[in-house]
Amino acid sequence: MTTHDGYRYQASCGSFSKGLACSAVISPPSNLPGFLSDDGFDVIVIGAGYAGLTAIRDLCNLGYKVLLLEARDRVGGRTYTADVDGHLYEMGGAWVHWGQPHVYHEMHRYGQTKMLNSNEAEIGCQSFFTACIDGARTSMSLEEQERLVSKAFEVFCNVDDSYGRRLLPYPHEPHHNPDVRYWESISAAQRLDQIRHLLDDVQITTLQAFLVAISGNTMKETGFFDILRWWALSGYTVLGLYEYTETYKIAAGQSDFARCFFEEALSTGNLRFSFQTAVTGIHDQAGRVTVTCASGQKWLAKRLVCTIPLNILTKVDFNPPLPAVKTAACIKGNVNFGAKLHLEVDDTHLLSWVATNWPGTHIFSCRGDGITPKGNTHIVTFGANKDSLSPQQNAQEATAELNKIQPVTVQQVVWHDWVKDPFSGGSWCMFPPGYSFRYLDALRERHGNVFFASGDWAYGWRGFIDGAIEEGSRVAKEVSVCLGRLKAVAASL
Amino acid sequence: MTTHDGYRYQASCGSFSKGLACSAVISPPSNLPGFLSDDGFDVIVIGAGYAGLTAIRDLCNLGYKVLLLEARDRVGGRTYTADVDGHLYEMGGAWVHWGQPHVYHEMHRYGQTKMLNSNEAEIGCQSFFTACIDGARTSMSLEEQERLVSKAFEVFCNVDDSYGRRLLPYPHEPHHNPDVRYWESISAAQRLDQIRHLLDDVQITTLQAFLVAISGNTMKETGFFDILRWWALSGYTVLGLYEYTETYKIAAGQSDFARCFFEEALSTGNLRFSFQTAVTGIHDQAGRVTVTCASGQKWLAKRLVCTIPLNILTKVDFNPPLPAVKTAACIKGNVNFGAKLHLEVDDTHLLSWVATNWPGTHIFSCRGDGITPKGNTHIVTFGANKDSLSPQQNAQEATAELNKIQPVTVQQVVWHDWVKDPFSGGSWCMFPPGYSFRYLDALRERHGNVFFASGDWAYGWRGFIDGAIEEGSRVAKEVSVCLGRLKAVAASL
Repeated sequence: MTTHDGYRYQASCGSFSKGLACSAVISPPSNLPGFLSDDGFDVIVIGAGYAGLTAIRDLCNLGYKVLLLEARDRVGGRTYTADVDGHLYEMGGAWVHWGQPHVYHEMHRYGQTKMLNSNEAEIGCQSFFTACIDGARTSMSLEEQERLVSKAFEVFCNVDDSYGRRLLPYPHEPHHNPDVRYWESISAAQRLDQIRHLLDDVQITTLQAFLVAISGNTMKETGFFDILRWWALSGYTVLGLYEYTETYKIAAGQSDFARCFFEEALSTGNLRFSFQTAVTGIHDQAGRVTVTCASGQKWLAKRLVCTIPLNILTKVDFNPPLPAVKTAACIKGNVNFGAKLHLEVDDTHLLSWVATNWPGTHIFSCRGDGITPKGNTHIVTFGANKDSLSPQQNAQEATAELNKIQPVTVQQVVWHDWVKDPFSGGSWCMFPPGYSFRYLDALRERHGNVFFASGDWAYGWRGFIDGAIEEGSRVAKEVSVCLGRLKAVAASL
Repeated sequence: MTTHDGYRYQASCGSFSKGLACSAVISPPSNLPGFLSDDGFDVIVIGAGYAGLTAIRDLCNLGYKVLLLEARDRVGGRTYTADVDGHLYEMGGAWVHWGQPHVYHEMHRYGQTKMLNSNEAEIGCQSFFTACIDGARTSMSLEEQERLVSKAFEVFCNVDDSYGRRLLPYPHEPHHNPDVRYWESISAAQRLDQIRHLLDDVQITTLQAFLVAISGNTMKETGFFDILRWWALSGYTVLGLYEYTETYKIAAGQSDFARCFFEEALSTGNLRFSFQTAVTGIHDQAGRVTVTCASGQKWLAKRLVCTIPLNILTKVDFNPPLPAVKTAACIKGNVNFGAKLHLEVDDTHLLSWVATNWPGTHIFSCRGDGITPKGNTHIVTFGANKDSLSPQQNAQEATAELNKIQPVTVQQVVWHDWVKDPFSGGSWCMFPPGYSFRYLDALRERHGNVFFASGDWAYGWRGFIDGAIEEGSRVAKEVSVCLGRLKAVAASL
């Protein structure tokens, strides 16, 4: 099946197309036709990303009557897997790790623990790193690069003489230690200024390129605290950071994994769903929530789970209106306007290649990520896309930029524009300086009968698949307790 | 409430007692009286350790009628928390980590993410390490000790020039790489012989003491593969090994956590339970499983989940009998005959103290683990207990041995004898050499309508709470699919 999402540019014939083959598409898009709902649903869940998928699965298993509404034609939200000429491309969130508790727990549940290692060098394939700085290229071994980045990152994150262990002893509880308040208030740029004198130029450049690839924005717009949290969650080492955040992919693809949640929910008989159904209004009155869809259709439920991402949440008309602090949080929002593009190139020597490009425009970093059935190399790149290029420009400028880093023949480009996507409005969540203490807890609070779940405001792996599942799990539990299904137990003993 | 489990020896008055105050005791012990079961249960679960607790919780939530049978008077199996004079002692499994996916996922579910750090030095308290080797004591800083053990462990585990990363790339999949077969076949003693020449005497001694404290048996009886798996699961570093396996405790105690699973299951209205109810027979005939209790009472179910530990599984009379390979696996069994004893001592300078004792008898290693309400230090020790000492001897000999390592006044000793305990028959699971390839998969296989779940045969954190939850989760899913509650979904789309 083909999702409306995503773009493909084939260099050989100059052809450009929208929509990609993807197993996450749900067809038919709804099982509502013919369904009569007299008194509404127990719970309506808006959004079929991992937060919403976890919520519907948990709620349906508990016996609630659930309606899932999703604007896209597929499950997975800011993750999906495109099958292009028999090769799987992860268009959004891709990398997972067995130390990410929520996602690995679910991978185990669904027998999806088979993984691919993006860093695995094929036999006979040379591993190397290219730093392209102001257009000048230097190459070194991946071991040399690791030492270089390790040193730079260790200095950057060593805020407490214990590489962050004292300051962030429990990385899944971001505000556990009140001492983090200062570090939460500064930007990545400010932190770099504090330690710049301890590093040499190559270290600084490589660190900067790495950081902007993480944040999808400038160092000034990126909160230092978010970088520090990734570091702590990854075990307080650079090797951990690589292994947790950019190494292991689910072998069958994210879309296969996402479908498991949906199919389990569906198998209970408790799930109604409607894809390609955007929501425009949420009205919470007299103990019932009415959801209005773009088509004008209305649905009623006792409780609502809203998983709409941070950057587009205010597009929906809430009545009663969202509290001022939530609205302010949404307006300030996720600052990640990063771009991820896949390029199929005909140079097979780049399989174990990693590169940094500074100052990049569309590409800050790139790496080999597999061999396509045609024998070409799949290169995945990360950059910024705040400038709202047209899709065609995107493909062509990325191709041109990759050629500056490494001369190659690009066969095709495959990507999704998460920034201009009206249902995401940005990439994986990164907070600006001073945001977490001010807004994080407010974003997690219920608003009457409306509960909010999103990886954008997870406590642990925020911005990751793990964080989305953390949130779906939290809110499904809260709703269940609230509706009395999981009741207090002391009296029954 | 007071469990029948555990011992306490108070040195001041020479008093010795059995049974400890514990919140995991379930009272009344059964909700079966007055219950009429016409056609039996959907599922009977034997055992209320974490594997059983996870299974009953998942199955009850899915709407199955479940009966839980447990030989003890409490939930938690080989974990429970004793409250002695207002101080919490973890009598069995204690340490957890957010990188252990299954247990942390559940801690998050139950709002039990608040932890205590066993390694946290109090202000003004000196951290130090004592090595007591052949009766001679040497002290050094914890930093020095860490360097010493790090070096020794790195050499010990560096089987592939990448510290185990290549050999065990996916630590939750023990047999993923066929090259592990050789390493699985040798003992920890054989591995030490291979690398002995690379280490000095202090390193060798400290490594040995550490290893036998992990395995609760001799180096010869301990499979090297199990040590390597702990290492890989902990991120392939010694610091990781410390942090994952002996640092973080659930602040409210394991018993509080274990109750959460039980209470959620109970709140569904689908759970019947009977504690202090040992099982003697399991008869699987004509599509129904009959469970016979020690009292002679029989119960009937469509499926059975058996979580009886490896070392005592053959005590139950199976009909049809267990396959020969399962029986052989049980007879060879878990080789961990380790002892864990808590000593309350009046020296508050030992709060951040760690010690190794070699060749120890009852104590191989010990450490400060908190301050009691009386202002004394809580020392936790690990040793071996294969010799079947009487409880009184246990307390007195451990006291005497601790005094050889560090002269102290012991106020009291609190412990559980997991080796002589008829419902465990050993401590956390460690396999001998050559066991994993031969038996692990066989132990996980269903036997007709009987499904087996235990941390003793988990794929990931085997022998840990995480592994028990992994297993309870796996088997609850399998039973649900088998009973048709979670059915295949393609047809319904």
